[in-house]
Amino acid sequence: MTAPALRDRESTYSAISMKEAEEIMQNIATKMTKHFETVDVNLSILGKVVATTVKSTENMPPARVSTKDGYAIIANDGKRNKLVIGVSLAGSVYDGVLQPGQCVRISTGGIVPEGSTAVVMVEHTICTKRTDGDEEDEIQLKDYISDGTNIREPGSEVRQGDVIVRSGAKIGSAELGILNAFGIKKVHVFKKPTVTIISTGNELVAPTTEYVPLGMVRDSNGPQLVALFKEYGFDVIDGGRVSDDFELIREKLEHHLKTSDIIVTTGGVSMGEKDNLKEVLKKLGMEIQFGRVMMKPGLPCTVATGRIKNADDVEPLLKTVLALPGNPASAWVCSHLFALPLLRKLSGYQRIHHTQIKVRLAENIKLGDRPEYVRAHLEDLDNEDFPIAHVTGNQISSNIGSLVGAMALLVLPKKENSDFIRKNELVKAMIL
Amino acid sequence: MTAPALRDRESTYSAISMKEAEEIMQNIATKMTKHFETVDVNLSILGKVVATTVKSTENMPPARVSTKDGYAIIANDGKRNKLVIGVSLAGSVYDGVLQPGQCVRISTGGIVPEGSTAVVMVEHTICTKRTDGDEEDEIQLKDYISDGTNIREPGSEVRQGDVIVRSGAKIGSAELGILNAFGIKKVHVFKKPTVTIISTGNELVAPTTEYVPLGMVRDSNGPQLVALFKEYGFDVIDGGRVSDDFELIREKLEHHLKTSDIIVTTGGVSMGEKDNLKEVLKKLGMEIQFGRVMMKPGLPCTVATGRIKNADDVEPLLKTVLALPGNPASAWVCSHLFALPLLRKLSGYQRIHHTQIKVRLAENIKLGDRPEYVRAHLEDLDNEDFPIAHVTGNQISSNIGSLVGAMALLVLPKKENSDFIRKNELVKAMIL
Repeated sequence: MTAPALRDRESTYSAISMKEAEEIMQNIATKMTKHFETVDVNLSILGKVVATTVKSTENMPPARVSTKDGYAIIANDGKRNKLVIGVSLAGSVYDGVLQPGQCVRISTGGIVPEGSTAVVMVEHTICTKRTDGDEEDEIQLKDYISDGTNIREPGSEVRQGDVIVRSGAKIGSAELGILNAFGIKKVHVFKKPTVTIISTGNELVAPTTEYVPLGMVRDSNGPQLVALFKEYGFDVIDGGRVSDDFELIREKLEHHLKTSDIIVTTGGVSMGEKDNLKEVLKKLGMEIQFGRVMMKPGLPCTVATGRIKNADDVEPLLKTVLALPGNPASAWVCSHLFALPLLRKLSGYQRIHHTQIKVRLAENIKLGDRPEYVRAHLEDLDNEDFPIAHVTGNQISSNIGSLVGAMALLVLPKKENSDFIRKNELVKAMIL
Repeated sequence: MTAPALRDRESTYSAISMKEAEEIMQNIATKMTKHFETVDVNLSILGKVVATTVKSTENMPPARVSTKDGYAIIANDGKRNKLVIGVSLAGSVYDGVLQPGQCVRISTGGIVPEGSTAVVMVEHTICTKRTDGDEEDEIQLKDYISDGTNIREPGSEVRQGDVIVRSGAKIGSAELGILNAFGIKKVHVFKKPTVTIISTGNELVAPTTEYVPLGMVRDSNGPQLVALFKEYGFDVIDGGRVSDDFELIREKLEHHLKTSDIIVTTGGVSMGEKDNLKEVLKKLGMEIQFGRVMMKPGLPCTVATGRIKNADDVEPLLKTVLALPGNPASAWVCSHLFALPLLRKLSGYQRIHHTQIKVRLAENIKLGDRPEYVRAHLEDLDNEDFPIAHVTGNQISSNIGSLVGAMALLVLPKKENSDFIRKNELVKAMIL
């Protein structure tokens, strides 16, 4: 560490714009190695992204099936009364051939018998003759119907060879459903990256500490960020806490860089004399991509990359450390802005940023000298085209309470002509 | 089962409006018992809803702390040069009392010493004298600052006794973070309901079946709905498949009603002769709340309630069965419309419906004779106030492909004056 009297008294890192920071992150995401795996189709693949397009090997439906409960008939046989000659139910096929004046009782999903050209709904028929055993002998159509009515043709929904899940699709319940419908047993997907969370700071004690000594604080950043990445479906390693000791931080980072694609640290990136994260990163041979970003909360947000040898990799792989400020609001917001998009990109997601919508402000907001990401709660009103945004309390970066109940990050510009952005104005909001 | 010739030829259930169906569901949700539990604060409580407001037993910050790296000074002592008499770092307190002309080097989060009235940022100082050991002896302020600058007062963010997480709040990463920050170890929450998924139909075979016999289909509804409820954070039991046999269905439902709050079945609710779900529900002593809903896809959607004795409950509890159509699009859409809001309500959520926004149509859509929930993909454009909605393929209820890539359900009215809703018109969309 440089002695206090000799240290830099201003940050040597110029604060870059959000646009530049996002471009750098995009560039890192492109350069980092994506991993793939072939996995069994089951619940554990929810949230993974398909890497190789899956095509159908079958027609759906495989044969002509009825879309209604009713009777398979010959539509143009001129006969309004039809003899009921059999039954075709879902799961039990009638294998005869229909002749004029005949019909087969059929249920939704049942195979339409050969010779039949349409299905009339049961609601549009009357039973005109029945057997002693209360079986139907003859029905009468209330109206004539045309050929093809209520029949799904083979392959009318999916033809053999059609794409059923495209490369780049995130597997949700719908995608898992269609893979099951076509009997697909394995799928080639992006392997999710691993992210490790480390809290740094001499002042940190375990969150479970009952009485916290003066000057110490419970580490909430650690559990908060582990939870954040878990909520968004990523594999998180809880790297625990480390004090502001250069060597201890270096060892901890070096250890976790071997098994993680990304490390997110909190603390140690400001102008304090114990703020040595940037120096540790350089010592590890990593390159500081940026050391400050002109935004709020999170000005000292730092990102470094370097090629690190995994235990089992022949070639060293590009790893990224996001060294975030220790203030809880800064760490949380910067995780949303920089870490989640990177993790999503490595996971194969095509949309890596939170969805942005326009919202209407419920109150005046004072603008600052940096663009700001303001935590807000959204209210849906029936007669409004835009949700109403309410700011969640004091937005100072140390206020962890400003994150509670936040459903969106309002994207506010820096102060220019006006000190305020006014109630009822529309602003962009990132939906969390 | 009633003999084919004697059965009803039209549904005896009148199709109610979506508004009525939603009111009935709301009423059921109110009547069903909510369960509570006291749980340890850890990752496993993500997604649960707080049942008893959590208040702080401490001030945050607990004492005066610095918001910047710099020097704790007496702002109005008239002296621009200050003697550096000590250091107060995060995690290491300076316990002397500051006198005029003195200062204490301090880091972000460090305790502000007694006597000090402000913190000047290191960037706004010059080191004017140093020791031989490169320690600072004296600094000079570039500018005067006012009392209170860069100091967080005790309790300025949260006062002892303030609410930190309100009853009704869903626990996300932010809420977990603040509970950890205040050392809260246990929290009283809503216990999540249990939902069991059962697929009915003689035609169903396992999704893993390689060659499906003519007339049979792989059960995709089962895995699809298990995945859907799991995606939304609920505890799901996979109840498997059962054939269209009255007694077998009755036994399966009776068995699972003992351990589940809600059962979702697919199939057996239409006008086919094997469609006996409604009859089974009545036989179980349940009351059919509605048997058809005037909407698409999912007209025959059925909901029944009844008081059922749990194995371990003294009082029988109100249980709900949602008997959904077997067509995959219908089952999936009805799960979103009816099952998820009910599960959310029982879990204590205050917002039980999907968020609705306005979207702009990318194409003309033909309206039908029922209000329709059309699956759509949304595209965000930078220069547009509203996302652009693209319909995901053929919307026939049997088309499982129409669910793939769906990010929203467009809420379309039934046909009235016009057969179409036109490209570029705004419509409501439920975000999935």
